[in-house]
Amino acid sequence: MLEKVDLSKKMSKEEYKEKMSQLETRIGFLQRECKALKIPVMIVFEGFGAAGKGLQIGRLIQSMDPRGFQVYPIKNETEEERMHPFMWRFWTKTPEKGRIAIYDGSWYRRVLIDRFEKRTKEKELPEAFHSINSFEEQLTDGGTVIIKLFLDISKKEQKKRFEKLQRNKETAWRVTQGDLERNAKYDEYAAMMEDMLFKTDTDYAPWTIVEATDRRFATVKIYTTVIKAMADQIEKLSVQAEKKAGTEAGQSCGNVSQVAQEADRELRELQVSILSKADLTLKYTREEYDGKLEKLQKKMEKLHGELYRRRIPVVLGFEGWDAGGKGGAIKRLTAKMDARGYTVNPTASPNDIEKAHHYLWRFWRAMPKAGHVAIFDRTWYGRVMVERIEGFCTKEEWQRAYKEINDMEKDLYDAGAIVIKFWMHIDKDEQERRFKERQQNPEKQWKITDEDWRNREKWEQYEDAVNEMLLRTSTDYAPWVVVEGNDKYYARVKVLKTVVDAIEERLKEK
Amino acid sequence: MLEKVDLSKKMSKEEYKEKMSQLETRIGFLQRECKALKIPVMIVFEGFGAAGKGLQIGRLIQSMDPRGFQVYPIKNETEEERMHPFMWRFWTKTPEKGRIAIYDGSWYRRVLIDRFEKRTKEKELPEAFHSINSFEEQLTDGGTVIIKLFLDISKKEQKKRFEKLQRNKETAWRVTQGDLERNAKYDEYAAMMEDMLFKTDTDYAPWTIVEATDRRFATVKIYTTVIKAMADQIEKLSVQAEKKAGTEAGQSCGNVSQVAQEADRELRELQVSILSKADLTLKYTREEYDGKLEKLQKKMEKLHGELYRRRIPVVLGFEGWDAGGKGGAIKRLTAKMDARGYTVNPTASPNDIEKAHHYLWRFWRAMPKAGHVAIFDRTWYGRVMVERIEGFCTKEEWQRAYKEINDMEKDLYDAGAIVIKFWMHIDKDEQERRFKERQQNPEKQWKITDEDWRNREKWEQYEDAVNEMLLRTSTDYAPWVVVEGNDKYYARVKVLKTVVDAIEERLKEK
Repeated sequence: MLEKVDLSKKMSKEEYKEKMSQLETRIGFLQRECKALKIPVMIVFEGFGAAGKGLQIGRLIQSMDPRGFQVYPIKNETEEERMHPFMWRFWTKTPEKGRIAIYDGSWYRRVLIDRFEKRTKEKELPEAFHSINSFEEQLTDGGTVIIKLFLDISKKEQKKRFEKLQRNKETAWRVTQGDLERNAKYDEYAAMMEDMLFKTDTDYAPWTIVEATDRRFATVKIYTTVIKAMADQIEKLSVQAEKKAGTEAGQSCGNVSQVAQEADRELRELQVSILSKADLTLKYTREEYDGKLEKLQKKMEKLHGELYRRRIPVVLGFEGWDAGGKGGAIKRLTAKMDARGYTVNPTASPNDIEKAHHYLWRFWRAMPKAGHVAIFDRTWYGRVMVERIEGFCTKEEWQRAYKEINDMEKDLYDAGAIVIKFWMHIDKDEQERRFKERQQNPEKQWKITDEDWRNREKWEQYEDAVNEMLLRTSTDYAPWVVVEGNDKYYARVKVLKTVVDAIEERLKEK
Repeated sequence: MLEKVDLSKKMSKEEYKEKMSQLETRIGFLQRECKALKIPVMIVFEGFGAAGKGLQIGRLIQSMDPRGFQVYPIKNETEEERMHPFMWRFWTKTPEKGRIAIYDGSWYRRVLIDRFEKRTKEKELPEAFHSINSFEEQLTDGGTVIIKLFLDISKKEQKKRFEKLQRNKETAWRVTQGDLERNAKYDEYAAMMEDMLFKTDTDYAPWTIVEATDRRFATVKIYTTVIKAMADQIEKLSVQAEKKAGTEAGQSCGNVSQVAQEADRELRELQVSILSKADLTLKYTREEYDGKLEKLQKKMEKLHGELYRRRIPVVLGFEGWDAGGKGGAIKRLTAKMDARGYTVNPTASPNDIEKAHHYLWRFWRAMPKAGHVAIFDRTWYGRVMVERIEGFCTKEEWQRAYKEINDMEKDLYDAGAIVIKFWMHIDKDEQERRFKERQQNPEKQWKITDEDWRNREKWEQYEDAVNEMLLRTSTDYAPWVVVEGNDKYYARVKVLKTVVDAIEERLKEK
């Protein structure tokens, strides 16, 4: 999750001011609604040291009625707390109905800082994660809203902030030896955070990553996230109550519903745009291409044999814009591979038998044997793209799918497989150029249909869906690779090189 | 779970015949309904060797339309299967919509026989359990019904069956070396099964323990369980469909709903009655009582100091029939304990502040510090008894509570606590005698209210709830102890002795 986060996100002073005045009013309004509806709210702040947790909490509570919330700084345990079961201090700090509890640090310290400093042993981790998830599930089942914010900054930014604090006599004390050590071992600590995010990003209490380099951007994202979560719960309860009473959605619910929708749109705008970061000017000349391609294909041929001998299965998924170059890349990838050792699985709309099963069933069936390579031309990610956008599945279904897919890929990885997913990326102009070229070329006309043009009209919707997908399903065990595809030569070489590198890496490991 | 199972359950031939004719018709009817509604059904048979899985599967399919189901014997992996990720063979064997798949052995082998024979390493277990739960959650979220049956027999019964098979030339081959080894190490294997049941008894795919000593009893329980699960899902879908269509529950749903209710009642009758096994004639003379009590109280005094020095927390929960002797037992237990080292928490109806929190909150707050003893006179189990029966919480809430409570007690245990729960058991006549005595005794009149008499009228309802509670929440880390309480002397000594033994056991460990 973390490696796809765009930490360069910023917001101008003007934009910030404009947004904030509205957000502040809304949070006050929602706090009153939550109180009236007796909804307890828990807001968790976690993240890297010096990411600004304290500052952001201060900023958040400015717009709240102080009689309705409480802030809990969670530091080392007190004597009293150490004498009790770990979760005791958090159970006793759960908010009453209608109140808001804000945690600066939280029960996650057990799987973060306590793990890093080896106070939590590795063998205790399964129990610790189980305990955390069951705590959150019990509370949300009981009607509590849990909002979990993860403030993210880079190693460099963190170092800069620590140095700034140290330079000033009045703030130097705030930087501890532990802070500096975690900065030095940033990658190691980040891996633990990644593991934590994977294991606790549940449907009842999901994480929101807050890009915290720019404080204004972070504040707006935090406000909007809190607003969205509160409004959603209010709406849910109001709808339930009205269903029971047999009446139509009332005025107040209408307001809340509007707030929720606006927050949703706002969040999408604030969303990490992974795609927009791709540099589509990257390219190779014909000579560069020919040279690299030949070398890589030869390597691939050799590695393919090695995979077979070492019984390592490989799963490669290809997704991308229509005319993004999936077919061409797959063709070059497999050019010198032994045909007995790989399969290309084209994924079309499910047939009747496939429809009669779970949507993952047909993909499970096609998973490779040990030593074999399975290539998917379009994949199980259809669930969170076309099925989501065209309404072929319900909102609950595609939202659930991120976790289902992560779990499936984890199963494959645990069974020894190399798993990589490629997003073949081109821009809208390049797509138009390719569509037209196809229409004019009699040999390629079959490749272009009315549906392609229709899909193109939904470019922005797809872009949102793809960004969310990349963020939520790029894992260290099954990463997404965005392939800059405006230049076909560049794209094909990148795909081949990524696969070759991953295999070489794995062969080194074992 | 397993230690509370009553393996002496039996059924006469006559009763069996009478029940079966109806059950067979019903299962045929429900199979057709599931087909029409396109509900996929998975039925898993697990349990001890020679418990009769094959025989019961044969019996179950007799009443089914053979075009609608498939039986999968799950033995050692084939070459093809071994070359794929572990779950691949099960994903590819999931049933189509409207069909039934029956598994003789299943994906649980990875955490049972494969674990026992060390093919699954201990450090792989968290992933294996995660993978199993997520497989079942994904399928049930997609509309599949998963019915998991665990066939239970005792070590002795298993040995008897193996010997019988071995005596006959034609069946001797069926008993493998592995079978005999697992019988020899029955307790070790049973502990793995217990662990498996704890970790995979989810709300979306719960386990049913089938007492399999008597084959007729087992067959009836299996049929009834399958009928209940199928009928529930059909009803759920029909109600949803009718809600959508805006119509009233139709004829077919009415039938199914009736079948579901009857199966429910039937299952309750078949339920393990843990309470009925208690021998209420147990008693001590005054002399025996005095002698034992003094000795145990002295021990307790000494152990209490030792607990304090070793910083071991103790949680003791007391539940039982009104006038069951909770108060008296607690008084004798604490008689010689240092008052600074224990608290007795009487649990009444929740006050306003308590009501404004999660139902477990007030109990978490009262959990003991390391080295202290917390005694609860009535406990968090109110959720699955009085709140269930009086309708103070919803069905979803009390059903969810078993897992929530198990999780809480696991947290306490993981933090080093000794956790024991007592059910103070008396029979209905003894209760009446005590009620009347209280009414006639001016000093005890305050102890008896109209509510006590009202609760008494719901004795049978409570009995069902208590049996279910004892079965589902007695764990090896937090066992239930049924205290035979008709004789107060016997009951008080048993409570004291249980606590003393548990503490001595723990002190030996560390």
